[in-house]
Amino acid sequence: MATIKDVALAAKVSVATVSRVLNETGYVHEDTRTRVLKAMEELNYYPNEVARSLYKRESRLIGLLLPDITNPFFPQLARGVEDEIHRLGFRLIFGNSDENLEKELDYLQTFKQNHVVGVISATNYPDAPNYQDLSMPIVFLDRTGENAPAVFADSREGGRIAAAEMVRRNAKKITLIKGPAHLQTARDRFNGALEMLSGADIDFHVMKTETFSFPEAQKRAAELFATYPETDGVIASNDIVATAVLHEALKRKIKVPDELQIIGFDDIPQSELLFPSLSTIRQPAYEMGKEAAKLLLRLMKNEYIEQSAVQMPVAFIERQTTRKAE
Amino acid sequence: MATIKDVALAAKVSVATVSRVLNETGYVHEDTRTRVLKAMEELNYYPNEVARSLYKRESRLIGLLLPDITNPFFPQLARGVEDEIHRLGFRLIFGNSDENLEKELDYLQTFKQNHVVGVISATNYPDAPNYQDLSMPIVFLDRTGENAPAVFADSREGGRIAAAEMVRRNAKKITLIKGPAHLQTARDRFNGALEMLSGADIDFHVMKTETFSFPEAQKRAAELFATYPETDGVIASNDIVATAVLHEALKRKIKVPDELQIIGFDDIPQSELLFPSLSTIRQPAYEMGKEAAKLLLRLMKNEYIEQSAVQMPVAFIERQTTRKAE
Repeated sequence: MATIKDVALAAKVSVATVSRVLNETGYVHEDTRTRVLKAMEELNYYPNEVARSLYKRESRLIGLLLPDITNPFFPQLARGVEDEIHRLGFRLIFGNSDENLEKELDYLQTFKQNHVVGVISATNYPDAPNYQDLSMPIVFLDRTGENAPAVFADSREGGRIAAAEMVRRNAKKITLIKGPAHLQTARDRFNGALEMLSGADIDFHVMKTETFSFPEAQKRAAELFATYPETDGVIASNDIVATAVLHEALKRKIKVPDELQIIGFDDIPQSELLFPSLSTIRQPAYEMGKEAAKLLLRLMKNEYIEQSAVQMPVAFIERQTTRKAE
Repeated sequence: MATIKDVALAAKVSVATVSRVLNETGYVHEDTRTRVLKAMEELNYYPNEVARSLYKRESRLIGLLLPDITNPFFPQLARGVEDEIHRLGFRLIFGNSDENLEKELDYLQTFKQNHVVGVISATNYPDAPNYQDLSMPIVFLDRTGENAPAVFADSREGGRIAAAEMVRRNAKKITLIKGPAHLQTARDRFNGALEMLSGADIDFHVMKTETFSFPEAQKRAAELFATYPETDGVIASNDIVATAVLHEALKRKIKVPDELQIIGFDDIPQSELLFPSLSTIRQPAYEMGKEAAKLLLRLMKNEYIEQSAVQMPVAFIERQTTRKAE
């Protein structure tokens, strides 16, 4: 097990400096701080004792509420949260709400019973009154709540980028797929893309989907090509939907990306494993989990936080379902 | 929130019968029992009070240790465990060991500190001495330990089935890919396939892989076709490796399944999303999680358990990377 001395040695600083970084007391140059934190990470150093004295709370448990861990977007979020809190000696109580309000309330109740010191929630009900009664800090993840601390990706910008990349790659008859209306993040990415397409000199077609389930997406993809066969560019509401569109295109022997380009959203791990691999808008899920954990830890320490709504950047990941830009 | 009366009504039995099922006291016909449990499940009934009196323990926490939740096999396991314990009012403390013994020990320690009432572990070190010192019951999941309670799939039979299906589908030059040697489950599936191929009147080639990582699998897949181009059937060590082989084949314009058949192992969710979708040997991950939870709950109640090594059946899932059997 690495000690504070090992960290000091690896970071080429004194033990006192490492201690200042850990306790966030006294002046430490930003570069030095980064070096110390990096050494801690590399050496797998867990300052349990320090953390204990820092927080002086009874439980070292944080509650994490997800919609469904078997949805491939969420394991990355959970890993990010865990990796960040683990170093400081905290552990996760973890539950899936299945977007069911009763299950969500039930978990929040048992989080309280287990004296969690904070909650991170990625469920669908950020403005539900049950969160207002909680005595411990809470951070919303991949969701935005009114005035609530939250970490989320810049979905609107993601939508704009997806549309701009599609136009730049010379798609002429674009289909924009709209995700489930009850999800703020789905609405944002749709509106971003819509804004961009409306401003461009281009034909486009909007198709809605009710869920992100693969079987429903398969049905909708078949309908798409039946009703709008001239489509040469699809901006999908997420990677699962993009995958269904890709399957349908391959089944119909449509050449991707020569005759049809597809852009997804999320960059779930399997998107890279498709053939052709999926071009998509990446949400930094792992980093979002880490940021949510950092924000929660700061709230737990009653630090002053200027900006408690943390918007994370998105990026276009160019793979094989789009052509080279001209 | 559903009550015991709602359950009785839905199952068409008396409240006393529901109570007998919950407390596992008195005689209840098996059909009736099944009906009551089904009604509980459908109504989302959580007999917290009953469970509390049943177990009379302080903490209602169970520790779950996985190698890595971002590996697509594990979310299903975790969901199975959670869904089973949730009804009885238990919650999960959850951690990833990254197959790192130090992290594993660290988690076991904090599980103890949080007074978990039981542990489910899917890590690589079932025989490590650290498990012998634990005072609470433990169940190994997807791992076999000497004389330790465990739930795992019948990997050897899975290997045999994969080989038999490949032979039955007229592959003549088979490549059998061997998974990481340190994993018992990987050795078992390899040995099962080897046994079947050795007994068949057929040429085959064995290729080893060190990890299940996709980039390594991609390299090995490229080598496979370079060194053994006549391969017309690949039995992969898992679905990730099978996916890499499929990519390489598609890149080389080899027709799947006409010129090359591929069978994976695991049936992770993304295997269905490949194009062509992957034929594979299914491990019932979700059900394995549920069985592990059931076994743990019985151990916690000090029930007599005749068979604490629970082997779950595997099955061939026929999709598009294999031809019709003749």
